[in-house]
Amino acid sequence: MTMIDIGIIGGSGYTGCELIRLLLQHPCARVRIVTSRRLSGNRVTNIHRHLSGLIDLHFENPPPSEIADACDLVFTAVPHGAAMDIIPALLKSDTRVVDLSADYRLPAQVFEETYGRVHTDPRDGDAVFGLPELHPEASEARLVANPGCYPTGAILSAAPLAKAGMIRCAIFDSKSGISGAGGEPSNTSHYPNLAENVQAYNITTHRHLPEIVQELGRLDNSLNSVSNVYFTPHVVPAIRGILTTAHLILREECESGAILDAYKEFYRDKPFVRVREEGDGLPNLADVRGSNFCDIGLVCGGNRAVVISAIDNLVKGASGQAIQNMNLMLGLPETCGLLISPLSP
Amino acid sequence: MTMIDIGIIGGSGYTGCELIRLLLQHPCARVRIVTSRRLSGNRVTNIHRHLSGLIDLHFENPPPSEIADACDLVFTAVPHGAAMDIIPALLKSDTRVVDLSADYRLPAQVFEETYGRVHTDPRDGDAVFGLPELHPEASEARLVANPGCYPTGAILSAAPLAKAGMIRCAIFDSKSGISGAGGEPSNTSHYPNLAENVQAYNITTHRHLPEIVQELGRLDNSLNSVSNVYFTPHVVPAIRGILTTAHLILREECESGAILDAYKEFYRDKPFVRVREEGDGLPNLADVRGSNFCDIGLVCGGNRAVVISAIDNLVKGASGQAIQNMNLMLGLPETCGLLISPLSP
Amino acid sequence: MTMIDIGIIGGSGYTGCELIRLLLQHPCARVRIVTSRRLSGNRVTNIHRHLSGLIDLHFENPPPSEIADACDLVFTAVPHGAAMDIIPALLKSDTRVVDLSADYRLPAQVFEETYGRVHTDPRDGDAVFGLPELHPEASEARLVANPGCYPTGAILSAAPLAKAGMIRCAIFDSKSGISGAGGEPSNTSHYPNLAENVQAYNITTHRHLPEIVQELGRLDNSLNSVSNVYFTPHVVPAIRGILTTAHLILREECESGAILDAYKEFYRDKPFVRVREEGDGLPNLADVRGSNFCDIGLVCGGNRAVVISAIDNLVKGASGQAIQNMNLMLGLPETCGLLISPLSP
Amino acid sequence: MTMIDIGIIGGSGYTGCELIRLLLQHPCARVRIVTSRRLSGNRVTNIHRHLSGLIDLHFENPPPSEIADACDLVFTAVPHGAAMDIIPALLKSDTRVVDLSADYRLPAQVFEETYGRVHTDPRDGDAVFGLPELHPEASEARLVANPGCYPTGAILSAAPLAKAGMIRCAIFDSKSGISGAGGEPSNTSHYPNLAENVQAYNITTHRHLPEIVQELGRLDNSLNSVSNVYFTPHVVPAIRGILTTAHLILREECESGAILDAYKEFYRDKPFVRVREEGDGLPNLADVRGSNFCDIGLVCGGNRAVVISAIDNLVKGASGQAIQNMNLMLGLPETCGLLISPLSP
Repeated sequence: MTMIDIGIIGGSGYTGCELIRLLLQHPCARVRIVTSRRLSGNRVTNIHRHLSGLIDLHFENPPPSEIADACDLVFTAVPHGAAMDIIPALLKSDTRVVDLSADYRLPAQVFEETYGRVHTDPRDGDAVFGLPELHPEASEARLVANPGCYPTGAILSAAPLAKAGMIRCAIFDSKSGISGAGGEPSNTSHYPNLAENVQAYNITTHRHLPEIVQELGRLDNSLNSVSNVYFTPHVVPAIRGILTTAHLILREECESGAILDAYKEFYRDKPFVRVREEGDGLPNLADVRGSNFCDIGLVCGGNRAVVISAIDNLVKGASGQAIQNMNLMLGLPETCGLLISPLSP
Repeated sequence: MTMIDIGIIGGSGYTGCELIRLLLQHPCARVRIVTSRRLSGNRVTNIHRHLSGLIDLHFENPPPSEIADACDLVFTAVPHGAAMDIIPALLKSDTRVVDLSADYRLPAQVFEETYGRVHTDPRDGDAVFGLPELHPEASEARLVANPGCYPTGAILSAAPLAKAGMIRCAIFDSKSGISGAGGEPSNTSHYPNLAENVQAYNITTHRHLPEIVQELGRLDNSLNSVSNVYFTPHVVPAIRGILTTAHLILREECESGAILDAYKEFYRDKPFVRVREEGDGLPNLADVRGSNFCDIGLVCGGNRAVVISAIDNLVKGASGQAIQNMNLMLGLPETCGLLISPLSP
Repeated sequence: MTMIDIGIIGGSGYTGCELIRLLLQHPCARVRIVTSRRLSGNRVTNIHRHLSGLIDLHFENPPPSEIADACDLVFTAVPHGAAMDIIPALLKSDTRVVDLSADYRLPAQVFEETYGRVHTDPRDGDAVFGLPELHPEASEARLVANPGCYPTGAILSAAPLAKAGMIRCAIFDSKSGISGAGGEPSNTSHYPNLAENVQAYNITTHRHLPEIVQELGRLDNSLNSVSNVYFTPHVVPAIRGILTTAHLILREECESGAILDAYKEFYRDKPFVRVREEGDGLPNLADVRGSNFCDIGLVCGGNRAVVISAIDNLVKGASGQAIQNMNLMLGLPETCGLLISPLSP
Repeated sequence: MTMIDIGIIGGSGYTGCELIRLLLQHPCARVRIVTSRRLSGNRVTNIHRHLSGLIDLHFENPPPSEIADACDLVFTAVPHGAAMDIIPALLKSDTRVVDLSADYRLPAQVFEETYGRVHTDPRDGDAVFGLPELHPEASEARLVANPGCYPTGAILSAAPLAKAGMIRCAIFDSKSGISGAGGEPSNTSHYPNLAENVQAYNITTHRHLPEIVQELGRLDNSLNSVSNVYFTPHVVPAIRGILTTAHLILREECESGAILDAYKEFYRDKPFVRVREEGDGLPNLADVRGSNFCDIGLVCGGNRAVVISAIDNLVKGASGQAIQNMNLMLGLPETCGLLISPLSP
């Protein structure tokens, strides 16, 4: 079988590094180019020491067109705002692109309001929002906008009830590991500030909220504003993982069994969503660590459902989901190379 | 000055131990008796090794009447259900009692429904619910029922808005350190299960919910059922502390400044509640670790307020608050011996 | 290709679970039987929840002979003392056995002194000590005794200098994650006791010391007693990993470059030992987490070398090394299915 | 009683902050001035949020002479090299000085070799090395050089055996919490790099080694070089605390009981050193957290002693010890205000 050639633009950060880790286990794809402006010329393993002995590439910095010509698919793992400078050049060639930044997840106008900067490459409707459980049309796309980590966990926790039109109000209270903030040391990531602590932040203003509203609104257009969809993120002392507690106020009373059945039906053919039975215990971060799974469990009472979802923010919340999209775009089985066991304990 | 003699019934667990730690710094009180049925005869410091060199008592096991005679005030730090077997005997003498168990926090009937056992000493209305910020009448009480840890953080986060009749629906999402589960090893407290993890539990059924409903209902009787007051606890990788995120749906729109002023006014003379200004950052566990403070911060938007409270579950959530009640009951300044600096970093 | 059938006797604990995780990624082997006396009849994924969707077996409890007949190779992951009751029956058939317990690592007499129990199946010299970097003869063995986790890291850190006869005295100071103590909650694994703490234990008496002495003594018989080989274990707040700091007092002065060259030469064809260059930084737990690598780095000064080794105690220190032995015993490439990327961050 | 007026030069970092925390509990001293060049004009509690409600000072930046005139004693908690620019001016007045930097701990020549900079205020023999258990002459000093955190734990672990001339070779393997590296975020303190990890650093070259050699050499001049005193520091996932494992090779065989008696005798009148009996368990970080204690325990075997010491690096390893020196210098009881209970769990 011919191996698929992959380019990673922006390979020095956590999501770039995680793309390499996951692709090393992929049976049909190989990493051909890893770029970094800052680190060009260095061995990849000088920076990502844990990959020593597994990969023998150097960081490079070729022009996008050259990368596009050499690769069947390119991941852009660059900061928000930088992807839109690169992707038009990539799309001029035949290559496909999965963008891990926020640049193409939202309509240009919403992007500009949310991120406070001009969008120089608006192509509304052209990029697929790459949450494969809701958007299988990624298989036809040339450009997929990989979702944010929080939206992935939040949307999957509420989608079946949103689709059924049952949600009056959704409050997402998320607890995230710190790797979502990246590899650069900061006051938030400083061990004495994070260990043995919990910290809420950007309570009503987090930039991931518009993605959540957009996707839930597509399922139920009564959820299309921020007046009944709330999102509060927290950081907890963990490297990886996001646990989202979705407090869903419903339009009528319900009971756990029926709702659970609806979730199982909704995710029947979605291999990465594991709906936990009652009695199986609720999702937690350890059960998904290092894997592409999204675990979901729930409890109902009166007109309220509490749904818990757990993902690894760097895998299902970023690089794993990007490869899931890659599989779809290239006609491979969705699970190809991605059924990696979680690392637990 | 004459020192006040203190008895601690049940001194082997975390709350008993924390009572000792705090009373060792108290200028007017001294621990005279520490009991433990199981450990009677052992040095206190054989079990609480960190107190070596600071206290020279042995665990004892005298009858309650003897303890009552010897002590001006007795703390009962025994499991739920055990306190009601001891306290009637204590109250026959002149001593005062602060009970850290759940036995006297709720009306007997609610207690029986919640804890699934018969109450053998119902004295509804006789015990003061010992949240001093709401119940200064502890100063007149002979028996104070010290609140649960979660209720302390939850009630204080919502009380000003409840008092103002502004809350339509209150959703408390709490993140707790594991010491609240006590000193006995369990699957939940097993390091590989808790570290790098977050775990929701007892989502709709936690036994602390009736305390929250009772106290908020006293402030606003439209909040007197469980249909608009929800509580979801989680454990996070921390030894101490509870961060409560109160998602409050309000009856009308509001803005942060006005609500913040209302909180500052409500807690004006409450030395242990520190209301954080906008721009001061939100409360977190490190800022209250080891101390009796409850920090509160908030953000409003539309008809929603998100209020964050942080306490040390073993201090303001248990033993520190018990001593705060003791100070009130004995006519001492409320802060006497309790203005201990948090341990941060 | 025909898949190799694997049996796991004792699949409920951490090492059994890790064998399953790793074999799920192995291209030539499949788990056919997983036993547990206690859990027989339960789904494997009811206990190892993180493996849901990846394995569809139930715990069984057949007699050893039946397992041996059905499997090409059997792993015994049972407590010390229990393996010797099972293995004779297994070896009556054609199957091969990798024993993860301590039962066959030491001569029967040393075992009896160390573990304080009678050895009922002494077969000295018959079982290969399964540290493949030192004992490639595992490829010819029917029974391999998989080393202890501490000995794996300690022996590999000192072997090149021991082989060269340069060590006068070796002091191994090891820092271990808590998963080495197993899945049962204990005072040591209780989160409030372990988090933010470090604890030395069994300072001069740990049962892994005789393994270290045995193997270093095979390389240099002046190291064959406990008078110049010392071992001090500690637990640190980590789930996985052992960092061993080997303080080696040498017979003569040396300098880092030459010693480093000797290490690189010694481990030239050993794919799982990664010798870190000067300037590359020292080994740490994150670089090997979840993988079968043993990273080694060192600094010399005067007549002293400080050598640091890092392993994942559940992989290179247990189940990964067991599969490495399996590969050798079955004529597969040593790295088959084992070149798994570490999970970092 | 007249309160003693205290100045803190450099109050923005961890040691300055910890001085404030501890002095707030001190019955005879009050903080009068806290300086910070960078933060001058800000409230102290804007930076040290956890102290809100406890202190009402602003950071200032007056000239040293002014501070000296206003204060009975000044702590200098500034970076190495900066203290020597300030202290001469302070000593011109009557005030006493405890310097928490390294500037006066070593003879000027050793300082220059170790820190790679010129000493502009050499006053060898003039400053007392402020380890009160070995240097009670601090009571006569005008300038005390507060020891480094690692040296405090290492020296106290070996002093009794050094004094007895029994040590042939001392290997200190220390495990430190990260707060010793200060409040500035760095790669080392970045949570994903430190959590679940252990990291050795500066293996043979740490700048604290000369302090250890100097003090042990004063007790036994055969220990006055670096050829038989070794020091290897590690960081572990903890905010506070240093556990030092002293591997001591002795001149003759010994047994635990006799050595333990020698330690108890040596530290008989030293209220902050707690020698743990056999059977009491070994020292650990939790037992000393937040306190000024140094716990010591040991096990002997053959001609080797393994001695474990535990301190809180910010208290006994820095600010607490500085106040212990202050007490001595001002004629107060050594323990005045310092017998604070450790925070455990």
